[in-house]
Amino acid sequence: MSLDSKSAPLRIGIAGLGTVGQGVLRVLARNAEWIERRCGRRLVVTHACVRDRSKKRDCDLAGVVLLDDPLQLAQADVDVVIELIGGLDTAQALVLEALQAGKAVVSANKALLAERGQTVFAAAEATGCALGFEAAVGGGIPVIQALREGLASNRINTVAGIINGTSNYILTEMDHKGMAFDEALADAQRLGYAEADPSFDVDGIDAAHKLAILAAIAFGMPPAFTSVHTEGLDTVQAQDVRLAQELGYRIKPLAIAKCSEAGVELRVHPTLIPASHLLASVDGSLNAFRIHGDAAGQTVLIGAGAGAEPTASAVIGDLIEIARARTPSLPLGQAAAQLRPRRIVPLGEVESAYYLRLRVKDTPGVLRAITSIVADLDISIEAILQKEPRDHADATLAIITSITTESHCDQALARMMELSFMQPDATRLRVEYFND
Amino acid sequence: MSLDSKSAPLRIGIAGLGTVGQGVLRVLARNAEWIERRCGRRLVVTHACVRDRSKKRDCDLAGVVLLDDPLQLAQADVDVVIELIGGLDTAQALVLEALQAGKAVVSANKALLAERGQTVFAAAEATGCALGFEAAVGGGIPVIQALREGLASNRINTVAGIINGTSNYILTEMDHKGMAFDEALADAQRLGYAEADPSFDVDGIDAAHKLAILAAIAFGMPPAFTSVHTEGLDTVQAQDVRLAQELGYRIKPLAIAKCSEAGVELRVHPTLIPASHLLASVDGSLNAFRIHGDAAGQTVLIGAGAGAEPTASAVIGDLIEIARARTPSLPLGQAAAQLRPRRIVPLGEVESAYYLRLRVKDTPGVLRAITSIVADLDISIEAILQKEPRDHADATLAIITSITTESHCDQALARMMELSFMQPDATRLRVEYFND
Repeated sequence: MSLDSKSAPLRIGIAGLGTVGQGVLRVLARNAEWIERRCGRRLVVTHACVRDRSKKRDCDLAGVVLLDDPLQLAQADVDVVIELIGGLDTAQALVLEALQAGKAVVSANKALLAERGQTVFAAAEATGCALGFEAAVGGGIPVIQALREGLASNRINTVAGIINGTSNYILTEMDHKGMAFDEALADAQRLGYAEADPSFDVDGIDAAHKLAILAAIAFGMPPAFTSVHTEGLDTVQAQDVRLAQELGYRIKPLAIAKCSEAGVELRVHPTLIPASHLLASVDGSLNAFRIHGDAAGQTVLIGAGAGAEPTASAVIGDLIEIARARTPSLPLGQAAAQLRPRRIVPLGEVESAYYLRLRVKDTPGVLRAITSIVADLDISIEAILQKEPRDHADATLAIITSITTESHCDQALARMMELSFMQPDATRLRVEYFND
Repeated sequence: MSLDSKSAPLRIGIAGLGTVGQGVLRVLARNAEWIERRCGRRLVVTHACVRDRSKKRDCDLAGVVLLDDPLQLAQADVDVVIELIGGLDTAQALVLEALQAGKAVVSANKALLAERGQTVFAAAEATGCALGFEAAVGGGIPVIQALREGLASNRINTVAGIINGTSNYILTEMDHKGMAFDEALADAQRLGYAEADPSFDVDGIDAAHKLAILAAIAFGMPPAFTSVHTEGLDTVQAQDVRLAQELGYRIKPLAIAKCSEAGVELRVHPTLIPASHLLASVDGSLNAFRIHGDAAGQTVLIGAGAGAEPTASAVIGDLIEIARARTPSLPLGQAAAQLRPRRIVPLGEVESAYYLRLRVKDTPGVLRAITSIVADLDISIEAILQKEPRDHADATLAIITSITTESHCDQALARMMELSFMQPDATRLRVEYFND
């Protein structure tokens, strides 16, 4: 880039003026002078593509050329294209065409990057154009940058965190107000924290997208979205939240990526964590990332994982790097040729502690039978809580096991379910101690 | 930089092979292959300068040219100089000479950057050479990068945090074990968390250095170390820690930089924070940074703020950026010409809530007299705790005031000290709610 292009305004085309797009325009306008000080040139949105031109928006579009087809942006007279339309096909076409036209791209599209990352990242590398996607993971929290640059010298063992705000909001409501899952979800929908179709969030798909991107950077592998094991929040009942509290834990929607000799674990599921752990106080719609590296040890980043302006903060952070005309980072922090696919550890081999909730008919010998089953599989019981109902109906048992493989835990649970006094509605959740 | 220099090994000269220097060599050796994948070239330490060649060190120096005078490194055949010798004069000479010789520099020297930053940063800008100093603040936590790059679009209102590990360790011991300050300090010294001369840490000088650097980046001003108000930990007694707990607070060694229309506040002092706040669980020698920006809202970064390998993680993170041959960031994220000195808000104008601990002779009318003094100054009492000793000696009163100016609080305290029943050993600490 010539010196001229360093001081000329950075011309920006933006595809999609929903919540985040409007946030980008608002922050660009509000902090224009400050941002210019930071990159030595002005950032000017010259083009925008919107689906409905007549819609009222909370931002100033004066002087902005409005286009109908996002793909026109790839050929427009702009230096950067911001892709905020979401979805896969059109977004991919826009990103690829913009890169091929020599434009830098900033995208918040986690689905695109997780599912078709290899194509998109290869295009950025081949064209030498910047592809910024800090906004795709963790909203305003600069976690992509932390993994790719700040902690780049570390062998990362684990990236784990609360990376879906909607799920965290729902579990926090269940925890603080004793709500049932359905009730907390309805609340979240009413307040705009959850979509009308909440499945992307509460089934763990959104978190799986983000986790695949984080693991790709952390472990130097191609994004492996389809290998992420996901479990939804609906397995958690109000009584589990309460029992977990009594045992000294809180249930959090965790996404976990672990790397070891055996391979890589990628999983998203509601998880018990010790109430004293830092992540246990990350409540409401906040996000948190815990990164463990061999040199830095544990680093935790907490902040607003979504929302118009936090996401805009990440988008504009990427724009400022582009405006500074620094050589672009490779999207995953290393050349595509260096990435190595990793063995995905099968779920049965995964090691974890477990929380088991069992309902048993009140008979003598219950505990003896259960403890003998786990002992046979080399599992210890770390904590146990028995709740006797007043009316002498079934008793509830909550157990925290020692760390064992998932297949051992499953065998133990299967054998327990065969016991004559056992009622069928057992629940199994994983427990994470962050002990690396 | 030519393509050749992009793939040739990056030749590194390192000044100072103490704890951090040895950590850098260890991590570079252990993660050599991984680091090469990340920057496309090898990082090789070719020169080192040590004070005592015969000293046994926990790292491999085979093939490294050993020099006696650090300044020789500036002229040595290396691409980067790592400055880990500390202190001011020699370090400054080394950094300036290396930059002028066209070499990139990585430094962990917070004193140099805080006290002579303007000279050093100007040299980096003038020469166009990289000056990395992620290791100078927050050890392994990439906070410099977060402020300068990731959150660059934000107007930052506040940077606050626990930024001295020794102080946090001491206050945590006082909190968890009911120790007195002297006892906790002796413990920290015995375990190597505190130096034989602990004044840099416990008097707040180290935190003031770091805060001046953070504020310079966050607010776009020259480092203002001499304007940082510091108070040491020794004002905190075991009973304050206990009373704070009972009132629902914890005492943390906080560094606070706030920016408003009135100017910039820069202060380091032990501070009460609500026990439910995220920073309240940041214990032991951990560091934490809370950054509040107008777009991203609150972002919190927590991790190891010191130690050989966490600091090495930051040093090598900077080396990797240099090895990637990206255009260097300006040290403070904007050109020196853009920096604007800011009015430093005089302490009397600072607004805060306060914790007051008073010792009073047990006389009727005590509370009435005290409440009338604060009411006259428009201060409310938010919480009060009265401890009557069994032996009817003096009573202890702990008060949390509403938010008021420091001069009002001082006036109130001065008037209280004139009351006939008041004993002379009152204590005043600030309370921070992180309400921006």
